[in-house]
Amino acid sequence: MPVKAKEEKMNIKKIIQWSVMAGIILMLALPALAGDPNGAETYTNDIAGMKLAINFTWTLIGAFLVFFMQAGFAYLGAGALRVKNTVNYFTKSYMDFSIGALAYWAVGFGLMFGGSKLYPGLEDGNAWIGWSGFFLTGDAYDVQTIMFWMFQVVFAATAATIVAGAVAERLKIQAYLIYSIFVTAVIYSIYGHWIWGGGWLSTLPYGVGARDFAGSGAVHAIGGFVALAGVILLGPRIGKFNKDGTPNAIPGHDVGMIVMGTFFLFFGWFGFNPASTLAATDLRISVIAVTTFLAGAAGATFVCYATYFKTGKVDIALTCNGALAGLVGITAGAAYVAPWAAVVIGIISGMLIMFGLWFNEWKLKIDDPVGAIACHAYNGVWGLLAVGIFADGTYGGVKGLIVGETGQIIAQAIDAVTVAVWAFGTGLILFGILKYTIGIRVSAEEELTGLDIPEHGTSAYPEFVIAGPFDGKR
Amino acid sequence: MPVKAKEEKMNIKKIIQWSVMAGIILMLALPALAGDPNGAETYTNDIAGMKLAINFTWTLIGAFLVFFMQAGFAYLGAGALRVKNTVNYFTKSYMDFSIGALAYWAVGFGLMFGGSKLYPGLEDGNAWIGWSGFFLTGDAYDVQTIMFWMFQVVFAATAATIVAGAVAERLKIQAYLIYSIFVTAVIYSIYGHWIWGGGWLSTLPYGVGARDFAGSGAVHAIGGFVALAGVILLGPRIGKFNKDGTPNAIPGHDVGMIVMGTFFLFFGWFGFNPASTLAATDLRISVIAVTTFLAGAAGATFVCYATYFKTGKVDIALTCNGALAGLVGITAGAAYVAPWAAVVIGIISGMLIMFGLWFNEWKLKIDDPVGAIACHAYNGVWGLLAVGIFADGTYGGVKGLIVGETGQIIAQAIDAVTVAVWAFGTGLILFGILKYTIGIRVSAEEELTGLDIPEHGTSAYPEFVIAGPFDGKR
Amino acid sequence: MPVKAKEEKMNIKKIIQWSVMAGIILMLALPALAGDPNGAETYTNDIAGMKLAINFTWTLIGAFLVFFMQAGFAYLGAGALRVKNTVNYFTKSYMDFSIGALAYWAVGFGLMFGGSKLYPGLEDGNAWIGWSGFFLTGDAYDVQTIMFWMFQVVFAATAATIVAGAVAERLKIQAYLIYSIFVTAVIYSIYGHWIWGGGWLSTLPYGVGARDFAGSGAVHAIGGFVALAGVILLGPRIGKFNKDGTPNAIPGHDVGMIVMGTFFLFFGWFGFNPASTLAATDLRISVIAVTTFLAGAAGATFVCYATYFKTGKVDIALTCNGALAGLVGITAGAAYVAPWAAVVIGIISGMLIMFGLWFNEWKLKIDDPVGAIACHAYNGVWGLLAVGIFADGTYGGVKGLIVGETGQIIAQAIDAVTVAVWAFGTGLILFGILKYTIGIRVSAEEELTGLDIPEHGTSAYPEFVIAGPFDGKR
Repeated sequence: MPVKAKEEKMNIKKIIQWSVMAGIILMLALPALAGDPNGAETYTNDIAGMKLAINFTWTLIGAFLVFFMQAGFAYLGAGALRVKNTVNYFTKSYMDFSIGALAYWAVGFGLMFGGSKLYPGLEDGNAWIGWSGFFLTGDAYDVQTIMFWMFQVVFAATAATIVAGAVAERLKIQAYLIYSIFVTAVIYSIYGHWIWGGGWLSTLPYGVGARDFAGSGAVHAIGGFVALAGVILLGPRIGKFNKDGTPNAIPGHDVGMIVMGTFFLFFGWFGFNPASTLAATDLRISVIAVTTFLAGAAGATFVCYATYFKTGKVDIALTCNGALAGLVGITAGAAYVAPWAAVVIGIISGMLIMFGLWFNEWKLKIDDPVGAIACHAYNGVWGLLAVGIFADGTYGGVKGLIVGETGQIIAQAIDAVTVAVWAFGTGLILFGILKYTIGIRVSAEEELTGLDIPEHGTSAYPEFVIAGPFDGKR
Repeated sequence: MPVKAKEEKMNIKKIIQWSVMAGIILMLALPALAGDPNGAETYTNDIAGMKLAINFTWTLIGAFLVFFMQAGFAYLGAGALRVKNTVNYFTKSYMDFSIGALAYWAVGFGLMFGGSKLYPGLEDGNAWIGWSGFFLTGDAYDVQTIMFWMFQVVFAATAATIVAGAVAERLKIQAYLIYSIFVTAVIYSIYGHWIWGGGWLSTLPYGVGARDFAGSGAVHAIGGFVALAGVILLGPRIGKFNKDGTPNAIPGHDVGMIVMGTFFLFFGWFGFNPASTLAATDLRISVIAVTTFLAGAAGATFVCYATYFKTGKVDIALTCNGALAGLVGITAGAAYVAPWAAVVIGIISGMLIMFGLWFNEWKLKIDDPVGAIACHAYNGVWGLLAVGIFADGTYGGVKGLIVGETGQIIAQAIDAVTVAVWAFGTGLILFGILKYTIGIRVSAEEELTGLDIPEHGTSAYPEFVIAGPFDGKR
Repeated sequence: MPVKAKEEKMNIKKIIQWSVMAGIILMLALPALAGDPNGAETYTNDIAGMKLAINFTWTLIGAFLVFFMQAGFAYLGAGALRVKNTVNYFTKSYMDFSIGALAYWAVGFGLMFGGSKLYPGLEDGNAWIGWSGFFLTGDAYDVQTIMFWMFQVVFAATAATIVAGAVAERLKIQAYLIYSIFVTAVIYSIYGHWIWGGGWLSTLPYGVGARDFAGSGAVHAIGGFVALAGVILLGPRIGKFNKDGTPNAIPGHDVGMIVMGTFFLFFGWFGFNPASTLAATDLRISVIAVTTFLAGAAGATFVCYATYFKTGKVDIALTCNGALAGLVGITAGAAYVAPWAAVVIGIISGMLIMFGLWFNEWKLKIDDPVGAIACHAYNGVWGLLAVGIFADGTYGGVKGLIVGETGQIIAQAIDAVTVAVWAFGTGLILFGILKYTIGIRVSAEEELTGLDIPEHGTSAYPEFVIAGPFDGKR
């Protein structure tokens, strides 16, 4: 789309730089023909081959649904922000999966699953970090490894996206383009190695070791606690807090976008959780879909009635956050708990997000425009703990308090502390370095006029008459 | 999202109430470990196991697509309404699947499929009603039963959603939060038992008994006729009819939302119809997908050209309704008819919706803002009858008039009358009771200013300049 | 939706006409019971049957995802246009899949796959054109043939949609309703026969014959070059070019719609490319999903950083086009290249779309409001050539320059020239005939006020205050 129509000469220098990069990729890749890149050795015309084909189908379609969550995050977040920052938020939402995919391909996947030996080309690594599978070359150019990568990359992209909402309306795009690489390639991936890549958390000597089925911790809490660090170092938006420390409400610009974004995320979550079995031959997938659905429904229903009983009005934006809170809360335990427990987990998630939003605004006095921290960090931790409480022993040998086992909750608590400390700590370091080098916050002037014009040269709705930038003071 | 930023204390009383509810759930659920909750007894490493895995994949992904239809209904309906009621409609659209899921989990599923013996835990029931499988506990905590529940719950949620559009812009949210529970848990589920749960309609002594493949009657006509009852008891919106009884057009506020919502619904319909086989090993799924596609395309194309030939303009909102009419019309017969018949059914659906909208507005003088009654009730009946006409005997032994059998159309006609009487009758009772107890209609003042501010405390587009509430008189 | 509320009498004459058409369909179809319409002869309860069921699942779900791309094209295009033409564009976007489906069912599919002998009922045809399978009757009323049709029809609909964006804001709706039939039924289908229906391009004596895995040429270049012809015959929008020939930017009206549309397209592309194997038992599907993802991500990332480095701002609309360019570029080779090569292909696609947009506006001086020609035509050609360069020999025996084979690139070049000449030539004829008969361009007055009111009788956002039609001169 030719948004800008002055004559544009391609910058020769940049083309050369990119070409050099492409050349490096080429050199890396050319000696790469190994593994089983077309399935000729992997697929067989028997039951084993059928299982592969079914499970590829299930996992890949699951990955596509998780990809679609990016659209949900974009819509939800943009709707919850003001018109003047809409292009900026959409840009961040769009770019993090793009940049993130390249970063995860080059670096993150190798750090996360190297040494897991789950698939060909993932041989090297230890309990703390992996170092094979980079660039999907060599033995990792294999249909199974690449199937697995496809499912993992969409998860990696989610973590970075979560941060974008919390730091919205005031973070420099330059800082964003850098941090999203580091979150995906390093922070997310190293922790992911500990829990999913065969690392130390998964082998803790309590219960069966820490378990985080689809990533309440590995994805949501990671994103949420990095966001918390970012928000603290950034400071609140101008106008968010009064001189006496009381917060002002800064409503988003499009309630429909919030609701539709939530629908999209809910839809994608049916890939996120059920497909995390990586197998449809594992019939537990039906239970996982249902626990996911019920927890999200319970979270929304609780918040809906709670806001209605409290104020006489139904707060739909908060209700949507209730649904997402329930979904985050069930994500770690979706495979391990029964439907009734999913309802209980979802209700508690609904309570927790209402409490968390209040706590962040009134006690911590931090400014998280979309409620990402309460939704993803707090409910991520809750999801990890819920495994230790509600796992009923019917899947993976995971047994929680309700069936009388006390070991699992210890593993889960260690995991929860670990994810919070790791993500918050590395988040502080990352945003701290950015803050004292290139800077992370736009100027006050840019913030007041909104980021769309200065950072993108266009407003989101050029023809609509807008009542003027809303600065929290009207 | 902290839309409201005054300090909010959690209402202790409500927390206790919810906790008690959670406790009840717990007590119900704890003795629940039975059935085959992880597939260990169900899945086998042979052809039988492969069939299960393939069919789980097909059915669950189908369920996810049907879930996505909720997003379509929300977008379509909201676009067809005025700005001032947008938040309200989105809230209803969002909440009915959430509340509905819980209601169907607790009550509806057991009423509908108890006694069907289709899956473990569904043993008890008779030809009129079922009574097992509640809460998915006991033997119903089984991978197969829960797979089936997942597919059924998204259908149940659809029925309640259909009503929301027809009663939009004037129904109290309190009435909504109650009726959506009853529609999902009782009205939909009991009728569903008759046709899908092994009840009396499916065993009528005409043809092979009444057949409603994916729910032209069971979902769409149920929703449509309950909506008709609601609309009659509610009365038309202020400004819809002039003193002489002639109607005014009240255009929606966003044509793009109407079109996108239709796309979303069409997309989801590929789960609704083809996955209703519950099996991909039933290769008829390809024909079902294509009859679905062609009927929707034919309905849209007919209405598009019809409005163009009649007025010189293409009415895209009506065309979208034509597509949906075609989809509703094919839903009962999607598996039983050939592609050419789907085109004919779709064209007739297109005619029927144009007639139905005119008939409702000019003859019945009822006000259905989104055309839900013409779309879902009338075309639902048409879909049931179309089975008796066009079924070509290639599937399920269902033979219609075109292959010379006259029995099936009798069964279909009985079904059509039954669904209309049941849904309209119970709808009248439900809305009647609500009307004379808590009331169903907002005050004239609220209606004129719109429901968003009084019922939700926010407008949908806080920063956009709106030309003022459109009341049908401009 | 009763947008228009004056009493409407059904035009009896039209009903008769349509009924006659329906009667013809009936006569065509009744002797149609042949093939295997329910799978009874095709499906077997063994490995062969399992393969069919898995591959039906994979292919049909892929088709549904490709269908969803229609929603993406609609949103993307509408967002890139001005408010005053929004209803018109949505109408075109919606109708082309509806009309196109009927045209492809009646005519296109038979022309394209007749003689391919791929499935029952597709026996007759030669190297230039096919002539069996029309209306899916006779032997083509078969579960396999119909499965295949479902996957093909959504591709056919895509080609016509691509044109809609390029000719937007000035093409008469009448011309549109006609050309979309011809593009789908004839132009697309005949070329498709040459490359996918067993025609002469696929059997060229260079390499393994021309290969276009999922349609860089067959879908995208066809749409793009027909669009080029249309744009030339239509001329630019009023206000696009100044008297000195320099172009003006005419920004779209909703950046969020552009981004969301891109997300939807990207999501659908996971059906477009990976499901083009028509088989999940072909485990290469994982590699195809990943090459698709990486090329789209690389295209977006290149354009994002390139615009940032060049202007200090990130142009998100252009970045979205970069993603789509990468996706178009990888489509022909998705199955034949390694992940690293997909990144290189995507980067070059990103360069190419930036160059192409500049070249079209500044050198060719044509007006393509959404950049469809640069995206689909130029990158479609690039995609075809890329196969001849980067195919690594691991799939289908296709070997490009990087593994030292020079034959394939010749076949690809012949294909590229063929698709450009065919689509541009037939496009000129089609639009030329329309231009000198019914006319293709709206009046200057209609163009200035926008097409929505004169052609559809409604504006897209009746309640929002719009700053006035934007004519490129503000």
